[in-house]
Amino acid sequence: MGLLHLSRELTMDGFEPALERLLARIEELGAITDTPGSLTRTFLSPANLQAARQVTAWMEAAGLKTEHAAGGTIRGILPGKDPSLPPLLLGSHLDTVIDAGKYDGALGVLIALAALEAAGPLDFPVHVLGFSDEEGVRFHATYLGSRACVGQLTDEMLAIRDANGISLGEALEREGWHEGASSFSYENSSSKGYVEVHIEQGRVLDELKEAVCGVSAICGQSRLSIKLLGQADHAGTTPMPLRYDALTGAAECILEAESLAVYNEGLVATVGKLDVKPGASNAIPGEVKFTLDFRHPDDAKRERLLANLLERFGVITKRRKLQLSWDLVQSNAAVPCSEALTGSLLDALEKHVRARFTIPSGAGHDAVMMSTVMPVAMLFVRCRAGLSHHPEEYAGPRDIAVALRVLVDFLQSVR
Amino acid sequence: MGLLHLSRELTMDGFEPALERLLARIEELGAITDTPGSLTRTFLSPANLQAARQVTAWMEAAGLKTEHAAGGTIRGILPGKDPSLPPLLLGSHLDTVIDAGKYDGALGVLIALAALEAAGPLDFPVHVLGFSDEEGVRFHATYLGSRACVGQLTDEMLAIRDANGISLGEALEREGWHEGASSFSYENSSSKGYVEVHIEQGRVLDELKEAVCGVSAICGQSRLSIKLLGQADHAGTTPMPLRYDALTGAAECILEAESLAVYNEGLVATVGKLDVKPGASNAIPGEVKFTLDFRHPDDAKRERLLANLLERFGVITKRRKLQLSWDLVQSNAAVPCSEALTGSLLDALEKHVRARFTIPSGAGHDAVMMSTVMPVAMLFVRCRAGLSHHPEEYAGPRDIAVALRVLVDFLQSVR
Repeated sequence: MGLLHLSRELTMDGFEPALERLLARIEELGAITDTPGSLTRTFLSPANLQAARQVTAWMEAAGLKTEHAAGGTIRGILPGKDPSLPPLLLGSHLDTVIDAGKYDGALGVLIALAALEAAGPLDFPVHVLGFSDEEGVRFHATYLGSRACVGQLTDEMLAIRDANGISLGEALEREGWHEGASSFSYENSSSKGYVEVHIEQGRVLDELKEAVCGVSAICGQSRLSIKLLGQADHAGTTPMPLRYDALTGAAECILEAESLAVYNEGLVATVGKLDVKPGASNAIPGEVKFTLDFRHPDDAKRERLLANLLERFGVITKRRKLQLSWDLVQSNAAVPCSEALTGSLLDALEKHVRARFTIPSGAGHDAVMMSTVMPVAMLFVRCRAGLSHHPEEYAGPRDIAVALRVLVDFLQSVR
Repeated sequence: MGLLHLSRELTMDGFEPALERLLARIEELGAITDTPGSLTRTFLSPANLQAARQVTAWMEAAGLKTEHAAGGTIRGILPGKDPSLPPLLLGSHLDTVIDAGKYDGALGVLIALAALEAAGPLDFPVHVLGFSDEEGVRFHATYLGSRACVGQLTDEMLAIRDANGISLGEALEREGWHEGASSFSYENSSSKGYVEVHIEQGRVLDELKEAVCGVSAICGQSRLSIKLLGQADHAGTTPMPLRYDALTGAAECILEAESLAVYNEGLVATVGKLDVKPGASNAIPGEVKFTLDFRHPDDAKRERLLANLLERFGVITKRRKLQLSWDLVQSNAAVPCSEALTGSLLDALEKHVRARFTIPSGAGHDAVMMSTVMPVAMLFVRCRAGLSHHPEEYAGPRDIAVALRVLVDFLQSVR
């Protein structure tokens, strides 16, 4: 971060046809939707399965051996010169949010295919994965595709029901693409690792004017719900020294969270939701509830910083004679990216654009699930204005070309 | 404020029967309601008119000459030894909020009557007023009773409609107590002044352990609606330096308002309502709207301090690259209480309980309207825990006795 932007002419070394095909396929895949006029492909929907079949056809045209799981996740295998070597995995997801952009997920699957088309023969097998669910729109449970691939669909998850009361287990049994389905999954140490190219979905690359970067880790996250209890009083008749104002207390806590994050690199802390009771212009707030979203690429630091912050909340509320309570709603561990795989990606990146840096990923990706059984690495591609989950989501052709060039070099460098 | 509580045995000098009657009448009036089981008497409701008739009967029993206006406001006149002297006015309101307490308003009317019963013959006329609307529940316009009494019911106000579409003008023509109604009103300098006893509706007396105090002024008030516009972003993928968080900006403004009020005696500043958009735990707030309630007994100071605060909001939002906008929703001038009348009330108070102090009234009262044509003064009576507009509203008999004693002394001292 904070690097000078040193642009250099990118040499494609004859990869132009693969790039052209990739850009055309992004458009073609982006037109496969359940909702004409906007892009929506949710888990096991007709468009979700149609997209899987389309990408399967492209894989076969590129000489990959394909298969699919009943849940709609697809796999294409290029055996390599020595099929007995552990495979390298590439991929991302083919589902989308509602009214989505066409790069989120799709780019990672299609760029993997394009990289194999451009790279020429490799020694080791490569598996390209197109996961059928990462966004979790239908079952409000994310990573269903990659989760199944690492054997972590628990009975508890299979019992989750969608808005129509259909359980995930029932959907997997009754819906979708059963003819010829196989089941495939990965176990510990069976693979070289999983590499995922994804749009950044943030503004860091855009601000730095950089096309592509590596990812240091997928941040761990704590989500809390915090409540401050004071005393509701009349705004006119209660002098300042007699107040127990839950909102001024919350304001102090919010600024404390912001300061902590500003002064601790890597930490992001966000209060996104805040409710005031009684919530009238002439009533001193007696109760405030707010959310705290707290992310850091290093779990130990996240936990220590969160403990520090809650201690500060305690000091603030004690001084103000407010009651403080909080619930830890969710806590996810960070996923560090493989230094070896990331180093190879950065070597290729540095060669082509002279930039060599990583950022933490604040959002989750299929790599989180894959990391439970193998090393993972990611490459982020700049997306315009950080806009994602939106029809105007956009990654430019030159940035995609850089990512493709890096991925090809990377494939050729893997031993 | 900050006085030591110096209690002294209160001597009632034979006023006990008047006090007993007063306490009994508060109970009796508090039972006259439109909603059995709780106390509600809104403008021109059956209970509102029944209360007016009941108090009229008590006035007549005390030897006052009574009359009523079509809107239900009542007046009782004790002519005094010289009926040609300008009258002194006492009173308060007989309407209530929904699910109200029995002291708010009623105490001021009934204690006036009790004071006349206890004071013995006076030289000058005294008018006791029971206003039919101060709370403004039905038409969302306050002080209708006292407003009519000073000739300030404008055509615009007469056109305001209640929830059933009936205009105030129509209600005054068609509803209520028309037989024998007279119209009476006051003009500039026609009276000695208006004195109103009221429960404090705040916690100052309760905290100071004082029964009664004077009122320095009824605070002027500015009500603003303030909007901060930043940029909504993903809480995970947007590092702290790239954020334009409207809520952390609002938090800084809220603490600035609090500090300003803490360091400027007499000022109260309250943010009571705050709305965050988009309002999701994983979204950085792009827009925050909040209310600001700003009151001070001195208009010039209020305006200067508000300008200072808005300037500070400008500095905060500029530094944070947020857009600031605000609307002045309401602005009411302060009403200073008469130093002469208040001084006489305090002389009496000091004689009986050795406390002599005033506080500003943060809430509005009928005295605001009466002040447009005559000097006004108020006496506040402690209410338990500052609780008002609530069925548990309570003023203790000893505190009411102190107020009665003070009011009697005051009446006897007026020249």
